Amino acid sequence: MATLKDVAKLAGVSVKTVSNVVNGYDFVKPENRKRVEEALASTGYRPNLGARNLRRGRTGFLGLMLPELSIPYFGELAGLVLQAAQEHEWNVLIEQTLGTRERERNALSALGPHLIDGAIISPEALHTNDFEDLAPGVPLVMLGEHVVDVPIDHVGIDNVQAARIAVRHLISLGRRRIAAIGAHPQRHTAAQRLEGYHSALAEAGLAPVPELVLPALRYHRANGAEAMAHLLALPEPPDAVFCFNDLLAIGALRAAAERGVQVPSDMAIVGFDNNEESAYSLPSLTTIAPDKAAIARAAVDLLRRRISGGSDLEPEDVQTPFSLEIRNSTIA
Amino acid sequence: MATLKDVAKLAGVSVKTVSNVVNGYDFVKPENRKRVEEALASTGYRPNLGARNLRRGRTGFLGLMLPELSIPYFGELAGLVLQAAQEHEWNVLIEQTLGTRERERNALSALGPHLIDGAIISPEALHTNDFEDLAPGVPLVMLGEHVVDVPIDHVGIDNVQAARIAVRHLISLGRRRIAAIGAHPQRHTAAQRLEGYHSALAEAGLAPVPELVLPALRYHRANGAEAMAHLLALPEPPDAVFCFNDLLAIGALRAAAERGVQVPSDMAIVGFDNNEESAYSLPSLTTIAPDKAAIARAAVDLLRRRISGGSDLEPEDVQTPFSLEIRNSTIA
Repeated sequence: MATLKDVAKLAGVSVKTVSNVVNGYDFVKPENRKRVEEALASTGYRPNLGARNLRRGRTGFLGLMLPELSIPYFGELAGLVLQAAQEHEWNVLIEQTLGTRERERNALSALGPHLIDGAIISPEALHTNDFEDLAPGVPLVMLGEHVVDVPIDHVGIDNVQAARIAVRHLISLGRRRIAAIGAHPQRHTAAQRLEGYHSALAEAGLAPVPELVLPALRYHRANGAEAMAHLLALPEPPDAVFCFNDLLAIGALRAAAERGVQVPSDMAIVGFDNNEESAYSLPSLTTIAPDKAAIARAAVDLLRRRISGGSDLEPEDVQTPFSLEIRNSTIA
Repeated sequence: MATLKDVAKLAGVSVKTVSNVVNGYDFVKPENRKRVEEALASTGYRPNLGARNLRRGRTGFLGLMLPELSIPYFGELAGLVLQAAQEHEWNVLIEQTLGTRERERNALSALGPHLIDGAIISPEALHTNDFEDLAPGVPLVMLGEHVVDVPIDHVGIDNVQAARIAVRHLISLGRRRIAAIGAHPQRHTAAQRLEGYHSALAEAGLAPVPELVLPALRYHRANGAEAMAHLLALPEPPDAVFCFNDLLAIGALRAAAERGVQVPSDMAIVGFDNNEESAYSLPSLTTIAPDKAAIARAAVDLLRRRISGGSDLEPEDVQTPFSLEIRNSTIA
């Protein structure tokens, strides 16, 4: 088995230079890097990352568990997490769960301290007792909603309050028959946004109308279009809709346009997430805008704190800011 | 240092069960998995992934280098690459380059056989000689466009032909003053799509009009809106625009709507990528639709072939299919 010294001798550089290449430092001259890499290849020396990071007491990897990268909110968030992790020399392994409890449980139980230093998880359907099977010793930060009764670091926005503000905005515009699209019995976020919706109706003295609360199996554009088609076929359609994410709202916008329904005059629509596309839809979409960069930074900072501070620290609950972006889907 | 046997004894399970947990197999009973993980943690045994994969002759990681996850095309593609890689038990490390040559070079030279088994790269700005610094021994597959003179496995679509088909479609609708948005002197893809645009004009006997070819610094919605505003301010605006990606086209749609320009009657618009949002824009977007799942599968398959077959294999150039999705931005 070749040693670092063998590689250095073959490459005609110092052991330190070989070590720098192996450790992925940036300041190695390109010609030296090339000679070292060639020497590494020809000697068969494989100074694996695991061994290097073990010396530093870490694997060098973070896990990021999220539903789907093709959902713009998660694509944008993942990009920001990668940036924040890179600043602390972590590579990020991404696991897609499709938001199903089964895949989320598998991802959780596969996370071990032999693989990652910590994980950022954005669960949709996990139950409290799914965490009992969790590998000990892996710091976790949970994004999105707070699964009850699990003492774990958490970053998110106040979903109840955000939904309340979205619906209050519709009420302030004189809307009285306000629908909600996105109810889902297994999704924690859905329950919180529904609570905010009901709470805003109640404080305005508006009675809840069960037929105006529509479920969505998934939170994709097609689900929003389908739900809006259903609402528009009611004997008395709503005059406004709060959608639990922007994709549902984009689908709803399209279904309204196909039926000649004017947005916002006939129907005001509010979304949630402030995806980049929502500033460009026609009409542009009023939406709740979470500060995604703040979420990504807070998650990585909480992991760093726990990795260096140990498992005895009290779990923290970081609430990141959000705003209501008012655009043409509610005010022409 | 604890051994696998110590861990098995402490957990009260077989060495095989410990090994299964360490190797991340799924079929371990949750209660056994939990006991093993606890024993692993309490003995301090860290059977690092590197060591395991070294026995299998691999690191267990693929690299995926792309511009930005927040660009829907790359978010969708990354999700599909993760799926294809997972089927062969690879975890994927994603590097965002923002499409700049500097960051792409850094990502290339940081790729080493100690870190990854292979990499899938989607370069925007790399030059042929950037590959000279490349670590030897890391199989690469290039996506998107083919950087000239580098003998490397490649997956992509025929960008010249796709652009030609998009512009022929506009010509077939009677459009004669056809603009292009997305020219960029350092982007290979841009050069190919521009070539297809010019070739379609030439075969229809239409003279190129330099003022109708607009550059885009980045391929974001804002760049498309800005370029369309410029075109609409010309003394003689175009009657059609071919945008080099869907985001540019979505921005162009919005800029047209803001100025009361009717799409498609006053102005037909074609995009490129078939992002999910393009079926939902108002009007929906006619666009070139690459088969992204085929691209992801082909890239992983080429890596598998090269990893098992060695570096002596001739580079392959896999062309994946595409179609023209005709929607309401060209035909009402």
